[in-house]
Amino acid sequence: MSLSSFVFGNPLKSEAIVDARFSKTKALAVFSSDVLSSISYATEEILLVLGIALTHSFALPISGAIVVLILLVSVSYWQTIEAYPGGGGAFTVVHENLGEFCGLVAASALLVDYTLTVAVSLAVGARALASMLPTLGASPLLFCMVSLSLITFANLRGVKEFSRFFVVPTYCFVGLAFLMIIVGLGGAHSSASRAGSMMPSNAGDELSGLLVAMMLVKAFAYGSSVLTGIEAIANGVTAFRKPQYRNAQATLVVMACALALLFPGLTFVACKYGIFFSADETVISQIARRLFGSGIIYYLIQLATICVLLIAANSAFAGFPRLASVLAKKRYIPTSFANLGDRLAYSNGILMLALVSSLLVVKFRADSFALITLYSIGVFISLILSQSGMVVHWLRVRGKNWHIKVAVNAIGATATMVTLLVIVESNFLDGAWIILCMIPVLFFIFRKISARYGVVNLELDLKKGGLGKLLHSSKEASPRVVVPISRMHKGTLAALRFALSLSRDVVAVTVNIDQREVDRLKLTWRSMNFQIPLVILKSPYRSVVNPFLDFLEEQDEQGQESGKAIVVMPSFVPGKMWQNILHNQTAAIFKTALLYRKRESEQTRIIVEIPYQMRF
Amino acid sequence: MSLSSFVFGNPLKSEAIVDARFSKTKALAVFSSDVLSSISYATEEILLVLGIALTHSFALPISGAIVVLILLVSVSYWQTIEAYPGGGGAFTVVHENLGEFCGLVAASALLVDYTLTVAVSLAVGARALASMLPTLGASPLLFCMVSLSLITFANLRGVKEFSRFFVVPTYCFVGLAFLMIIVGLGGAHSSASRAGSMMPSNAGDELSGLLVAMMLVKAFAYGSSVLTGIEAIANGVTAFRKPQYRNAQATLVVMACALALLFPGLTFVACKYGIFFSADETVISQIARRLFGSGIIYYLIQLATICVLLIAANSAFAGFPRLASVLAKKRYIPTSFANLGDRLAYSNGILMLALVSSLLVVKFRADSFALITLYSIGVFISLILSQSGMVVHWLRVRGKNWHIKVAVNAIGATATMVTLLVIVESNFLDGAWIILCMIPVLFFIFRKISARYGVVNLELDLKKGGLGKLLHSSKEASPRVVVPISRMHKGTLAALRFALSLSRDVVAVTVNIDQREVDRLKLTWRSMNFQIPLVILKSPYRSVVNPFLDFLEEQDEQGQESGKAIVVMPSFVPGKMWQNILHNQTAAIFKTALLYRKRESEQTRIIVEIPYQMRF
Repeated sequence: MSLSSFVFGNPLKSEAIVDARFSKTKALAVFSSDVLSSISYATEEILLVLGIALTHSFALPISGAIVVLILLVSVSYWQTIEAYPGGGGAFTVVHENLGEFCGLVAASALLVDYTLTVAVSLAVGARALASMLPTLGASPLLFCMVSLSLITFANLRGVKEFSRFFVVPTYCFVGLAFLMIIVGLGGAHSSASRAGSMMPSNAGDELSGLLVAMMLVKAFAYGSSVLTGIEAIANGVTAFRKPQYRNAQATLVVMACALALLFPGLTFVACKYGIFFSADETVISQIARRLFGSGIIYYLIQLATICVLLIAANSAFAGFPRLASVLAKKRYIPTSFANLGDRLAYSNGILMLALVSSLLVVKFRADSFALITLYSIGVFISLILSQSGMVVHWLRVRGKNWHIKVAVNAIGATATMVTLLVIVESNFLDGAWIILCMIPVLFFIFRKISARYGVVNLELDLKKGGLGKLLHSSKEASPRVVVPISRMHKGTLAALRFALSLSRDVVAVTVNIDQREVDRLKLTWRSMNFQIPLVILKSPYRSVVNPFLDFLEEQDEQGQESGKAIVVMPSFVPGKMWQNILHNQTAAIFKTALLYRKRESEQTRIIVEIPYQMRF
Repeated sequence: MSLSSFVFGNPLKSEAIVDARFSKTKALAVFSSDVLSSISYATEEILLVLGIALTHSFALPISGAIVVLILLVSVSYWQTIEAYPGGGGAFTVVHENLGEFCGLVAASALLVDYTLTVAVSLAVGARALASMLPTLGASPLLFCMVSLSLITFANLRGVKEFSRFFVVPTYCFVGLAFLMIIVGLGGAHSSASRAGSMMPSNAGDELSGLLVAMMLVKAFAYGSSVLTGIEAIANGVTAFRKPQYRNAQATLVVMACALALLFPGLTFVACKYGIFFSADETVISQIARRLFGSGIIYYLIQLATICVLLIAANSAFAGFPRLASVLAKKRYIPTSFANLGDRLAYSNGILMLALVSSLLVVKFRADSFALITLYSIGVFISLILSQSGMVVHWLRVRGKNWHIKVAVNAIGATATMVTLLVIVESNFLDGAWIILCMIPVLFFIFRKISARYGVVNLELDLKKGGLGKLLHSSKEASPRVVVPISRMHKGTLAALRFALSLSRDVVAVTVNIDQREVDRLKLTWRSMNFQIPLVILKSPYRSVVNPFLDFLEEQDEQGQESGKAIVVMPSFVPGKMWQNILHNQTAAIFKTALLYRKRESEQTRIIVEIPYQMRF
């Protein structure tokens, strides 16, 4: 029927919210697309930092160090799942254990993080497309914007019905990645790789020890972007079949193992075949091309990579609006973010994420390397806070083996903390400062909004004022009623009629802007023989509002015992909204002036609008 | 005090409108800047069209033909001034004599014309600046936008106090132009000019007769742009000292003579010195440089030219808003164009002119030649209509020597008509079609708006409905009152209280979006022991508005004898307007929905808003 129904589908009834229950295989696909997709750029980041000189000697050890980090964090989350079977998102855990301050820091970091997940995934996807089809991928910005529009649209429509399609590409991607590693391990060292392995050992010697150390630290920092998205399973425990937390833990183990095998595996294959960073082709594409030629398997690998990156971007469209709705319910951001749209999606959060991430993509011209620089910081801030929250949780709750559990989470927190310091130290000037500024800004906004809602609630609260008095003191003196008019017509008459029904103390007021209009009004007034006095206000400066406000104030002072004068305003409503440009919005201007200008008294001014609705 | 006062000056009282009365010398400067400034580009246009081949032989005859046109039109206007001593603007004359249709065509042509006056004057001014100081004039667009901003600002502030400064540059310009002609006539033929006079006579022979004829016609068309602004004195008769029309006529004669001497004079001097069109330097600048070298007199001439062009642009800022206010008072455009601003200027008209002319300047990249192509058409349409209007006027009024007067205006009309045909024929593809499309579009808009205001007046008219009935049938049954609420707070209580004061038949309504909110509301309701029933509406699609509207409709059907149910709405007004983003604008959404959605019945729905004003 309506345009909106046609595009987004018919509105859904509220009862249609069904909590999806995923099997382990499906859950793995849904929750791990984000973290698994990051292997498509993490290896590359390491090779980029190390350059031709150091890749061969150090890429593998660094990816080994990151695997240790992955395992530490996974074990931590294994415990979180058990402790928070209702969903252990960073915000929940931190807010509950470390208090509001840290909770909001975590929330800020997460929101920034979701936005970057979208931007990075799309930018890397564009790069993967360009590696496969250079002509089609010539405009990465176009690819990003088209994909973003489609994802936004799908989410506004409600993406649940599509989620089963996510399973195939994710498993394809994982399967093909393993295939690459197996084929790569089996294959002979190519001549190119031998040439590569010769060259760097010479080149490496020429670099000073300090410089090498700095580059290794930096490579670790950039490579740690592989951990982004690792918290997804712990976030989504409620979406598993029963026994929920057992299933979630099992899935987490599978995911962590896959990640811990795929990431160093691909790095090893890249090193073995002497593949270096190239601006024109992704490392995955280079590996695939070397192993399988430019045949069907190569195209499958690239397609699966692009798909899994798009699914990762899509996963942020689930996380961001959900977190925003939690924040809105707690009144840290405008409550409209908690509204479910026609299609049972948090439309405002979806639109906000689409807006901000498209700004990011445009600002950075879809440059995946620049975006990844910003990426890890938010992730690690929320990881640290979440681990620390778990430490406090165990200290508070105790229970079986709590010493061990505290130790595990403390180790996780320390490891992520060290990583964060490394990242900040090595990326600060590259762009990390942007995020380190943005998080406090968001934090500050949350606090301001929360304080504002607090003030509103306090003032509206019924317990403060005498309740009975408010409702039942209505036997008041007949109030004075003021009707502003400019000329006599049906609308004005209706207003006067209603004013007379309210009180016998009615006065009509007009502001003299045009002497001829006023004369005409006076004439009509006399000829109609009204019992209502007509007051004509002078307006030396041709303002309609100010003389009227002054008059009202006078009236209020005179009639203090009967409360503020009631304003009955005739207002003119054209048949179509755009026709308002043809009419002076006097009623609207009056109302705004009445409501926002004079605030000296606490009493309410009652404003009655008598709309005259045009039929055409 | 306020920012606006600081920038634009304090508001002026309405009494401060003093009709300026100009002496003849001052009036000449004020009213003729537009037409006199056009000699700075009209000669150049002729030379541009004729090119090196034809300039020497034909420039002077063509300017002679245009002088004849100037004299014919001036005599016509001499008569107009006598017939319309109250101001004989084209719109007035045409509307009165040829009816609404032609009047609106004239108005459209005039509005377009004023806009182009601004754009052309500024663009030519930029060219004059570039001729004098090539570095400063390198960005004509910048010059145009800065000048336009200053002129707009001055007009918003009220330009009257500055108008006496206009006299000096205008007279300087005229004096210097005469000086150029006198010195030019006296000087010996330069060698360059002799060389020039040799060359074209050879070159001209090579062109075919038809081509030459076409170029001559085109040169005449472009040269006739010198007539733009010739109607200014007839427009402004009321601004002269008494005897008004005699003084105006005398001033017109002086202006016509000055124009009829300066235009061919400058053309002659240009030809004599063998000056041709140049893209880098205006013809005026070339003449001045040839005669006076690059000394002080040269710079004075250029400065005076730029000043007089700026004054011409400024004159459109007087004419456009005044015409717009006349159209607004006759309800052909939104009435807000008839409002006098704080500084007694028609601010909306000024802003509209500034906006449209800046768009033109930007669109045409301040290219004066492209803009002049569009220019003359509007002028000549209004000239023709105004002359034809005068013919009808004399036929109607008769009086002394009416035969002669009819003949004079008829000749004027015919001459301008022929010129218009020439212009359209030779400029059509160059851009004249733009104007020929724009005028009907404006015309159509005027008619639509006028029709709309007509419908409104007809519907609001009191004579249609029984008047006494409307006001005195107020002894009606107690109306049903509906109060929409979402939760109990001070604002809701105030609304309920007022509802009870209106009627005993009050019902509170809430829409069930969030079951917990509704349960809380029910609890409060019971604990407060209200006598008012609380209706809870289901909303399967989470819309707040639709269930409420359906409920209201039901109520209206049940209680037909007591009229439509009155809606009393608590509304929440934060201390500052921007804080509205934190609150769901439920009251505003309800109101809009109530006013614009359901239109089946003619009766008015009374909406009472009980604002709760936050103190912070």
